[in-house]
Amino acid sequence: MSDLPKFVTIKEEGPREGFQIEKGPITTDRKVELIDALSETGLPQIVVCSFVNPKVVPQMADADEIVQRIKRKPGVKYTGIWLNEKGLDRAKATGVLDITGSITLTASETFLKRNQNSSFEHNLAEAGRIAQNFAASQIPVTTVGVASAFGCNFDGDIPLSRVLSLVDAGFEIATANGLNPERINLLDTMGWATPAMVRKVVGAIRERYPTKQIGLHLHDTRGMGIANAYAGLEMGVSSFDACVGGLGGCPFAGNKGAAGNVCTEDLVFMLNEMGIESGVDLDKLIECALLAEDIVGHPLPGQIKIGGNLDRLRERAKAAQAAAA
Amino acid sequence: MSDLPKFVTIKEEGPREGFQIEKGPITTDRKVELIDALSETGLPQIVVCSFVNPKVVPQMADADEIVQRIKRKPGVKYTGIWLNEKGLDRAKATGVLDITGSITLTASETFLKRNQNSSFEHNLAEAGRIAQNFAASQIPVTTVGVASAFGCNFDGDIPLSRVLSLVDAGFEIATANGLNPERINLLDTMGWATPAMVRKVVGAIRERYPTKQIGLHLHDTRGMGIANAYAGLEMGVSSFDACVGGLGGCPFAGNKGAAGNVCTEDLVFMLNEMGIESGVDLDKLIECALLAEDIVGHPLPGQIKIGGNLDRLRERAKAAQAAAA
Repeated sequence: MSDLPKFVTIKEEGPREGFQIEKGPITTDRKVELIDALSETGLPQIVVCSFVNPKVVPQMADADEIVQRIKRKPGVKYTGIWLNEKGLDRAKATGVLDITGSITLTASETFLKRNQNSSFEHNLAEAGRIAQNFAASQIPVTTVGVASAFGCNFDGDIPLSRVLSLVDAGFEIATANGLNPERINLLDTMGWATPAMVRKVVGAIRERYPTKQIGLHLHDTRGMGIANAYAGLEMGVSSFDACVGGLGGCPFAGNKGAAGNVCTEDLVFMLNEMGIESGVDLDKLIECALLAEDIVGHPLPGQIKIGGNLDRLRERAKAAQAAAA
Repeated sequence: MSDLPKFVTIKEEGPREGFQIEKGPITTDRKVELIDALSETGLPQIVVCSFVNPKVVPQMADADEIVQRIKRKPGVKYTGIWLNEKGLDRAKATGVLDITGSITLTASETFLKRNQNSSFEHNLAEAGRIAQNFAASQIPVTTVGVASAFGCNFDGDIPLSRVLSLVDAGFEIATANGLNPERINLLDTMGWATPAMVRKVVGAIRERYPTKQIGLHLHDTRGMGIANAYAGLEMGVSSFDACVGGLGGCPFAGNKGAAGNVCTEDLVFMLNEMGIESGVDLDKLIECALLAEDIVGHPLPGQIKIGGNLDRLRERAKAAQAAAA
């Protein structure tokens, strides 16, 4: 257990990943309400929206308005997602978002072909071009990422050697552009990761890049989210993407195969119980999860908002013992 | 990872733990249908009913009928639960159930007091009396169990020293009655366990009883079920109680704090992916989970029945690659 990190950094993806999948309309007011509540929990980073084509993702048509209306709390990084230069320009134009870049490569060739009409070669060339733009615009590039790092619905298992060579390629692109990302992010894009696989892949990456931080982006598609996070922690993983309430997919609404990121408050509960700091107030976060549930209007998969924070039960037990003494 | 077991034995608790919590009426036909389907999955043991007071648990009023009507598959152990001698007599009277006993002590004194008007002393004396009866009736006693081993809603954290001394006491009672249980079962009765705690408690038990099998009875009240199972596997735990579909509590129906045992098919999926044998056919088990969902008439929390068995996606990927070659 000596590899456990002392501190874990959580990137809250709920408002972005969560709302964009919802079918019903959600007002800008309510999106801002959730983001403002999340700002008070101690979360260090909140992804507040995506700058994407509103015809494709109508739930994010109000991205610019969200950014202008949230109450920015000092110390919290507010970020957005973009898929192309037009989106990046919109993000920059807000004037208030933290703009950081990543060099992310995809480990599944069929996925690249089907979703982006791309290939490994094209993906690499594109990442090089984007990195060059980041460097030219003096946008900090913090992360080398590998998408579909644990498996792919089209290509099946992903060889570890491919993941390693993509991380190498990401750092080569970074170096060629004078960039020095401090973090490697492994994305379980299609929910294939299992704890044993997390151990294997993270172990190999860590051996090759012992000084880099390692992060995990986990989906709970097959119920392994928290177990994968635990396996990652045992291997020294110190950053996680997560969604409050488990926003980002409703497995109980018949969206076959869809499930959100690992649930933020369930993760924070586990960290607290392991004595690992995250700076996040679990009780406030549980309130946010209940608020998120109210906003989307259907149950969200997070469990600790139902089961409750053990610290409160401990207090109650102590008070009862004191009263009896 | 060298402590991982090669084979894990699963006790299916769904038909018992699952149905008794449901509010709506479930016909005996449908209960028998699920048990018969479970019999075909390779599960080695199915707990089919409880012999309890039908006024208290009306869903189990048909316990005797269930037992008579199920199609018993050779090699599968069919068992039931009883809380007192009247129940045990009913179980014996069926003539077809496997009757095995356990010596189970409870680690929370307030829980004992509130739920059974009992105390540690009374609980010990009672366990001794029951063990004597088992010995006299030549009922095999396979297990020493500790309930509330990981924490209690009333007493808070449970000291490890108490769990250890209760295991010791259980074996002393066994020895005094000429019994030799091969297994220690730790019950997370109120869903307090976390992976780090599982490591600590199982580690200490294993050090003290290196030749005994260790089993876990986990509830998913705080979303830690599968992560706790993983932590247990890493410590050599080789038996689990589990509920198909995650039956046994519906966190989405407002039953605050209630959640079923760890979900059987999610557990089997994780075992398969870790190369640990359980003898269970995951695809058949997923069919049972879907059947269970149909029977109770509301969504069940298991995820792999939504996300799907990766082996099927691997086959599809291979077939596509072969077709393209």
